[in-house]
Amino acid sequence: MSTAELILSIASKAKAASSKVAKLDGAIKNKALLRMAGEIEKKSGLLKKENGKDIRAAEKKGMKKAMLDRLTLSDKVIKAMAHGLREVASLPDPVGEVTGMWKRPNGLVVGRMRIPIGVIGIIYESRPNVTADAAGLCLKSGNAVILRGGSEAINSNMAIADVLSSACRSTGVPQDAIQVVPTVEREAVVEMLRLEEYIDLIIPRGGEGLIRFVVENSKIPVIKHYKGVCHVFVDESSGMDMAVNIAYNAKVQRPGVCNAMETLLVHRDIAKKFLPLIHKKYIEAGVELRGCPETRKILKGVKEAKEEDWFAEFLDLILAVRVVKDMDEAIKHIERYGSLHTESIVTRDYANAKRFLTEVNSSTVLVNASTRFSDGFELGLGAEIGISTTKIHAFGPMGLKELTTQKFIVYGDGQVRG
Amino acid sequence: MSTAELILSIASKAKAASSKVAKLDGAIKNKALLRMAGEIEKKSGLLKKENGKDIRAAEKKGMKKAMLDRLTLSDKVIKAMAHGLREVASLPDPVGEVTGMWKRPNGLVVGRMRIPIGVIGIIYESRPNVTADAAGLCLKSGNAVILRGGSEAINSNMAIADVLSSACRSTGVPQDAIQVVPTVEREAVVEMLRLEEYIDLIIPRGGEGLIRFVVENSKIPVIKHYKGVCHVFVDESSGMDMAVNIAYNAKVQRPGVCNAMETLLVHRDIAKKFLPLIHKKYIEAGVELRGCPETRKILKGVKEAKEEDWFAEFLDLILAVRVVKDMDEAIKHIERYGSLHTESIVTRDYANAKRFLTEVNSSTVLVNASTRFSDGFELGLGAEIGISTTKIHAFGPMGLKELTTQKFIVYGDGQVRG
Repeated sequence: MSTAELILSIASKAKAASSKVAKLDGAIKNKALLRMAGEIEKKSGLLKKENGKDIRAAEKKGMKKAMLDRLTLSDKVIKAMAHGLREVASLPDPVGEVTGMWKRPNGLVVGRMRIPIGVIGIIYESRPNVTADAAGLCLKSGNAVILRGGSEAINSNMAIADVLSSACRSTGVPQDAIQVVPTVEREAVVEMLRLEEYIDLIIPRGGEGLIRFVVENSKIPVIKHYKGVCHVFVDESSGMDMAVNIAYNAKVQRPGVCNAMETLLVHRDIAKKFLPLIHKKYIEAGVELRGCPETRKILKGVKEAKEEDWFAEFLDLILAVRVVKDMDEAIKHIERYGSLHTESIVTRDYANAKRFLTEVNSSTVLVNASTRFSDGFELGLGAEIGISTTKIHAFGPMGLKELTTQKFIVYGDGQVRG
Repeated sequence: MSTAELILSIASKAKAASSKVAKLDGAIKNKALLRMAGEIEKKSGLLKKENGKDIRAAEKKGMKKAMLDRLTLSDKVIKAMAHGLREVASLPDPVGEVTGMWKRPNGLVVGRMRIPIGVIGIIYESRPNVTADAAGLCLKSGNAVILRGGSEAINSNMAIADVLSSACRSTGVPQDAIQVVPTVEREAVVEMLRLEEYIDLIIPRGGEGLIRFVVENSKIPVIKHYKGVCHVFVDESSGMDMAVNIAYNAKVQRPGVCNAMETLLVHRDIAKKFLPLIHKKYIEAGVELRGCPETRKILKGVKEAKEEDWFAEFLDLILAVRVVKDMDEAIKHIERYGSLHTESIVTRDYANAKRFLTEVNSSTVLVNASTRFSDGFELGLGAEIGISTTKIHAFGPMGLKELTTQKFIVYGDGQVRG
């Protein structure tokens, strides 16, 4: 079978399964999710053995330590996969939820009901635990899923998929609801991205290169997660303790993730008081600052920020700092350099809080809280399949509801149009 | 200026305008909409003069009568454009609506707020009234819009756009919020579809050829409206009067539109009683039937339905008719041949109604009502920019809310992540 034939066969099976999965009772989906969790724990020996093949091949190729860590199915990672599946089982079923209902003058009662999207393709890189996480979320939301992981994790992914499929089979869920693409060829991805008649949505999870490749080649809608150039704006009314805590947490608590702060904006009237306080804490944490001229007048010895630093997603203990003359300038900076991901204001002023929340149109906008809360679990979605930085279909962290769409339902008693 | 430069310049101006339009008060947007309506009426002479140029050019090219009708800006069409803009002004502003809010265990209060999408590109064919309709909906929902109409309506569209832009200017709305592409070159469309950094969403309105061209060439998300192969299923419990009324209305009231019925499914237990009744009415209306073997046993002289007839969007007084043995067969037929647009069941049975509403996942599913109600106005959305037959972002008739997306807003009091 050629790669094209293989992918077409997987996609056809997924499409056939999707209409069955869409109709499954929540109880059956939950039973399957709990069975998957149990089986993953029970078969952890097998999973680690298959993962070992991937690890050894990666070591041979000279993969770096950080990447090897991501690839490794440790006991902890396996436990987390099982825990994640149990968590998803405990969430409410989004399918069938009626989000609104109203009556028309002619007596028709019209509502909107959540339904699954259909077939979802997930294209991801090294972490094999994504296989279980994404499969669980897609099943719970009534979708069939085609998983295409990184070539370096192929043995791990195939082993996980086997465990998941067999848990499906034994609980009355079509086994084709969850399929892993069993080849490492790049051509397989390109073939997937052409099958708009079979696959309804593509979610790439990985670096910007992967996402751009997918967008360039896809005829299927893609939900994109580009970068997170997140800002904290400390306004002139901010209390020092809160401003220092939030600016510190947003940068330092986990600098390598997309919701960490990359640029700090400080109102001119408070800069001389605030910047030295936070600078002291940043120095202790090893944060390198890159400042505007005004910042560098206040904090001696700080490096100069270049134009590209305002656009940068450092994902590291590096921070761009700019003093602004008012909120207008802060908002303009965010509009020009931001990536629509997450922005926070620290303020004690009611009108400033209201204005920032209204006028800044990034996917998550916070008042007096760390940017690090921009996350499906932290915002209360119960789960997260990814974060969208484009505005179509979903914007920001995506949970189960974002894996559904809505149809109109209409209750009539014989109405016809005149 | 080359076409590419021209389109880039239009798109940059639209993007710059979009962040201003997003922040406009509802009152200003409404004032602009009412001004537009007034000016369109006041300048009807000018509009008809410019439209005359398009008409004469089209006549020279031998355009058919039906197409010429679509192209003509009659007094009635001009009045309808003005009325449409006033209607849109009277609808609630979708921007800023908070659709939900909840509290997290750490005290964060999280909500979702509707915001505009940004820049919307509308690509459409002959009817110049779309220029005003689409511009009004995009402005009301806080979006900037780039309108690219058919080459045959270029003078009409430019004249309408002039009137709309000047109404914007005089009411404090950025004039670049509404722009018409001032060239008939096909290349302009291709250039538009490449500008994913500037344009957030493309909505094509027109025939399947136009839509397929747009999907093939676009790097920007597209909301598609393919075809409407709509079904009515008359089940075994149906009352004769209601079934006849609905089956008649769905086919005959306006056969040329996408929500007209194209295939009638009839339960075997009622077919002998129902089919002769509806056939009599169809004959009077000049409807040509194409039936399955069982239909043709009951209705002598009816043509045979071929496989392609079940897939057909006739948009005419032609109807495919099939007798099915039960609801399973009806649903399977709809899943196989349908286009996910609109389906209706006629029934007196509670369980059948519930099952059909739940299991049929087309964009609009009705019980005891004509498929012709699948329309933004009829369903109570107040307006309609189009109908989506794909499940991403919007599914079914799209109103103002579907021209927005949602951001997360978070009210904290100093929360940081541990």
